[in-house]
Amino acid sequence: MALPVEHVHIVGTGLIGASLGIALTRLGADVVLEDLSPTSAALARDLGAGRLATEHRHADPEVVVVATPPDVTAEVVAAALGRWPSTTVIDVASVKGAVLEALQCKGIDLSRYIGSHPMAGRERSGAVAARGDLFEGRAWVVTPGPASDEQRVSQVRDLARSVGAAVTVLAPQEHDAAVAAVSHVPQLAASLVAARLDGLTDTAVSLAGQGLRDVTRVAASDPQLWTQILAGNATAVRAVLADVARDLDAVIDALGALAAERQGATAAGARAVLARSIAAGNDGHARIPGKHGAAPTAYSVVVVLVPDEPGELGRLLHDIGEAGVNLEEIHLDHGLGQPFGLAEISVLPTAARHLEDELQRRGWRLHG
Amino acid sequence: MALPVEHVHIVGTGLIGASLGIALTRLGADVVLEDLSPTSAALARDLGAGRLATEHRHADPEVVVVATPPDVTAEVVAAALGRWPSTTVIDVASVKGAVLEALQCKGIDLSRYIGSHPMAGRERSGAVAARGDLFEGRAWVVTPGPASDEQRVSQVRDLARSVGAAVTVLAPQEHDAAVAAVSHVPQLAASLVAARLDGLTDTAVSLAGQGLRDVTRVAASDPQLWTQILAGNATAVRAVLADVARDLDAVIDALGALAAERQGATAAGARAVLARSIAAGNDGHARIPGKHGAAPTAYSVVVVLVPDEPGELGRLLHDIGEAGVNLEEIHLDHGLGQPFGLAEISVLPTAARHLEDELQRRGWRLHG
Repeated sequence: MALPVEHVHIVGTGLIGASLGIALTRLGADVVLEDLSPTSAALARDLGAGRLATEHRHADPEVVVVATPPDVTAEVVAAALGRWPSTTVIDVASVKGAVLEALQCKGIDLSRYIGSHPMAGRERSGAVAARGDLFEGRAWVVTPGPASDEQRVSQVRDLARSVGAAVTVLAPQEHDAAVAAVSHVPQLAASLVAARLDGLTDTAVSLAGQGLRDVTRVAASDPQLWTQILAGNATAVRAVLADVARDLDAVIDALGALAAERQGATAAGARAVLARSIAAGNDGHARIPGKHGAAPTAYSVVVVLVPDEPGELGRLLHDIGEAGVNLEEIHLDHGLGQPFGLAEISVLPTAARHLEDELQRRGWRLHG
Repeated sequence: MALPVEHVHIVGTGLIGASLGIALTRLGADVVLEDLSPTSAALARDLGAGRLATEHRHADPEVVVVATPPDVTAEVVAAALGRWPSTTVIDVASVKGAVLEALQCKGIDLSRYIGSHPMAGRERSGAVAARGDLFEGRAWVVTPGPASDEQRVSQVRDLARSVGAAVTVLAPQEHDAAVAAVSHVPQLAASLVAARLDGLTDTAVSLAGQGLRDVTRVAASDPQLWTQILAGNATAVRAVLADVARDLDAVIDALGALAAERQGATAAGARAVLARSIAAGNDGHARIPGKHGAAPTAYSVVVVLVPDEPGELGRLLHDIGEAGVNLEEIHLDHGLGQPFGLAEISVLPTAARHLEDELQRRGWRLHG
């Protein structure tokens, strides 16, 4: 990919800022690093993210990337717009409406400001976790405001593409509503469901299957980070949660009616409420795209018994590869107290029969 | 495993009944099959699940297994207790309290009735989906009532173990409360979150990452089946959901306060509500056991870039096996519009560094 910008200035050398510095430096850009913490900036430099702002004078940057914590993003963007009068300024905060509103309140010209959100977070943070390939294959949402200059929007798209990201353009409010529904609300749902395990005995919790593990996997996330994210997107998250709460109340009422039914009351319509809730979930689930942004696909699942020994799962997937079949997804489901697990392999429906035949021919035990 | 019973009578030849018949027949038991549907019973016989009740007279069964739909379970159990005066009668319904209550209302002797729940459902149902290894490695909860005879409880435990299940003994109400929290409420949470994708544009939904896919995977489940399950466990599910709704309302209020804060209001304590909700989810998540019912373990995650071609994932896992490292979990995360995916490999923390070294030595690109 050709280098879209030669001179870049990055403010904030945490995970995103330092990773972007490494990626752009590798592409041949001249990257200058700035951070309130001299240690963080020096670490990013040592990792190959660029050179320090203090080291020597340089030409005005074509693009300034503001990669600070979200609560100071608007201030830093405004300062950058004032300091470099012809430079494009972008930010990378995970919430876009609040930043734009704060900038609009200042009454300054925002034609050179382009909001953006590289969706490339990791469990670890800080420059120490930075990687030049952090953005490869990840979505990078570009969120122009009403004043944003079209040519500069293209410049930012090219910048994101140059480091391997898949660019999507959305209005800031659309972005916030989207991440509320596809990321922030699922996080809260996982946390609230996991929190309900608190009152159970160890025996009760031991009945957990793959369903609970899937639903609650993200419940292990960092409370402080998520408090910032949720607070920054409070309005959009609240709107989606209010709809969830309304649906939840309807389910609770229906269950109450069904519990009373056993004592002789009538529960007209209660089963329909439950069935509609699950069916609406079917519809929503079917909208989630398959990989590569392709249309959603219903996969066939082939279940294979895998001895729990090093190399067995590798041997299975090697055999799947030999069969010429491409995996869409794989889940492992380990039984209680058993020396083997079940591998649930999702493949295109047209490939399932062939895969089953090939695996059985190679001695694998299919299951279910 | 030695055969714990010689003569078994199975009423209801759906997935569970037929699978149990196949498994016990293979062990050498004499299994008699009965079903309201002659077609279903004959199909189960043809699959090797046993012989038909009509074919010839036989000795009284030692155990009768009632594997009918849940809404007729209690009636069929009561009839079996009356028909065979010295036989142990078990059922396999996924909800236990409602069945026991219905039997207790009849005022009959329940010393020979032992409730149980093999947690071995599949996406497909009916005898046609039956498999003799359906119970291998799966939990089978045995739920004795206050009147249950101890020796017969042991008999049922032995029966479940003989077909490969891992037996857990719980009181019926404990069972229902446990599955409400670890299975029924997670299902509803997944459905309600997935239903919220309805109003989004395709572009917005395309921002979905692995988190959303995990949380909503079970949202693809069958509405009719789940309506029966939820209605049968209405009281216990409602109790857990009421706690979830209370926590959810607190989060919604906190987000409302934070949205108002931008207009100058104060939001004292709102961030603490959010942080506590995520932290409570951390605690609950940490309680979910690792595989084999072992104590929960925090795994280290190694992320590897995998070209999206048949055999590449197999080659990776083959290499992991060669490194002598045992996988705990693997998740695939495919980037938007990219010809490769990210494999997130969970291993014991002590093995992570060694695995990273071995994979890099073999040419794999680590990520994140």
